[in-house]
Amino acid sequence: MSSFPQTSNNTITRLPKRGEYDRDAIYAILDEALVCTVAFVRDNLPVQIPTGFCRMGDKLYIHGSVGSGYMRALAEHSVNVCLSVTHVDGLVLARSAFHHSMNYRSAVIFGKTSRVTDEDELYKALEAFTNKVQPGRWDDVRQPDKGEWKATMVLSISIDDASGKVRTGPPKDDEEDYSLDTWAGVVPLKLQRQTPIPDELLKNGVELPQYLK
Amino acid sequence: MSSFPQTSNNTITRLPKRGEYDRDAIYAILDEALVCTVAFVRDNLPVQIPTGFCRMGDKLYIHGSVGSGYMRALAEHSVNVCLSVTHVDGLVLARSAFHHSMNYRSAVIFGKTSRVTDEDELYKALEAFTNKVQPGRWDDVRQPDKGEWKATMVLSISIDDASGKVRTGPPKDDEEDYSLDTWAGVVPLKLQRQTPIPDELLKNGVELPQYLK
Repeated sequence: MSSFPQTSNNTITRLPKRGEYDRDAIYAILDEALVCTVAFVRDNLPVQIPTGFCRMGDKLYIHGSVGSGYMRALAEHSVNVCLSVTHVDGLVLARSAFHHSMNYRSAVIFGKTSRVTDEDELYKALEAFTNKVQPGRWDDVRQPDKGEWKATMVLSISIDDASGKVRTGPPKDDEEDYSLDTWAGVVPLKLQRQTPIPDELLKNGVELPQYLK
Repeated sequence: MSSFPQTSNNTITRLPKRGEYDRDAIYAILDEALVCTVAFVRDNLPVQIPTGFCRMGDKLYIHGSVGSGYMRALAEHSVNVCLSVTHVDGLVLARSAFHHSMNYRSAVIFGKTSRVTDEDELYKALEAFTNKVQPGRWDDVRQPDKGEWKATMVLSISIDDASGKVRTGPPKDDEEDYSLDTWAGVVPLKLQRQTPIPDELLKNGVELPQYLK
């Protein structure tokens, strides 16, 4: 296990005990997230875009249309970005309003963009995007043809600086509040899959694949 | 119903049919989200912070400790921020890798920060934060005392520019792919509450309140 060095940029200053710098722990938070937000500076102003992403090794990848304005802006140079993901794991209901909180796992990454032009890396990224939406999916679908390749822009983002922040467990109340008649505890939250809805145009006889059961 | 004017800043250029500028629709996307990310510029570089938030009327609110570095940075002047929320509603599994997608509802807001000093607005914001975590909660808990008030910084964010982006419905495949033997459809996702976990230190005899049943 390795850790990201703590710099003035990534160090959690508020509630530092919630800070997480271990690489594997941060990668696990990233890998579980379906979407991230990518922030960058445009005309000296902050902008952010919610988007799908994936990780391969020590790089993050986003993709979009070659016609997308922000993708083109991010592809132009090595652009500084800040990327984050957050999982909300529970509502933390304390006895006092002040100590209400949420259980969560978040990761914030600082890095630079780079357009992926190497065909092998590009292809692997497309496979990773598809299998991130649904593990096992890539081998089951029609893979991209030349025209689709050319319509898709893939950017890699270096992970220069990273930090995670995690809260777990019950509420923490002030000593004198534990005697109050107020219910306190955690309401866990989970992003759960519902029953798959087949496309109305699904070809007759095509069954739900094993990986979706 | 009113709409946000479309400017070069907020107009959805990629897949414009997914763009949403109606105020009520965007506010509904915001109100359902427990956390947002707030992006700002620090030393010419993009930074973003995941945080809880709430909306009252045409303003968004975030809060944190008066000791928080980024809260203090955002409180110093009227700072330009970009705030976003995203709900992932489903995995869209098409017959081709290229048309894989997600169903989602996102909102991106451009505005400026302002420190809330008016006591009435501050108090209402704290109530709104608590009731956002759990509707009905505020009336059931010990409300903030003077010391807690002073430890909490609340910032309002004006909603100067806003846009939403929404995808719903089944996959869209290329005409020739509909004859493939590949399963296609949507796997809906829902952030679902699990059974509440009472605090181990809960006072004897305190029952789960009605609003949590």
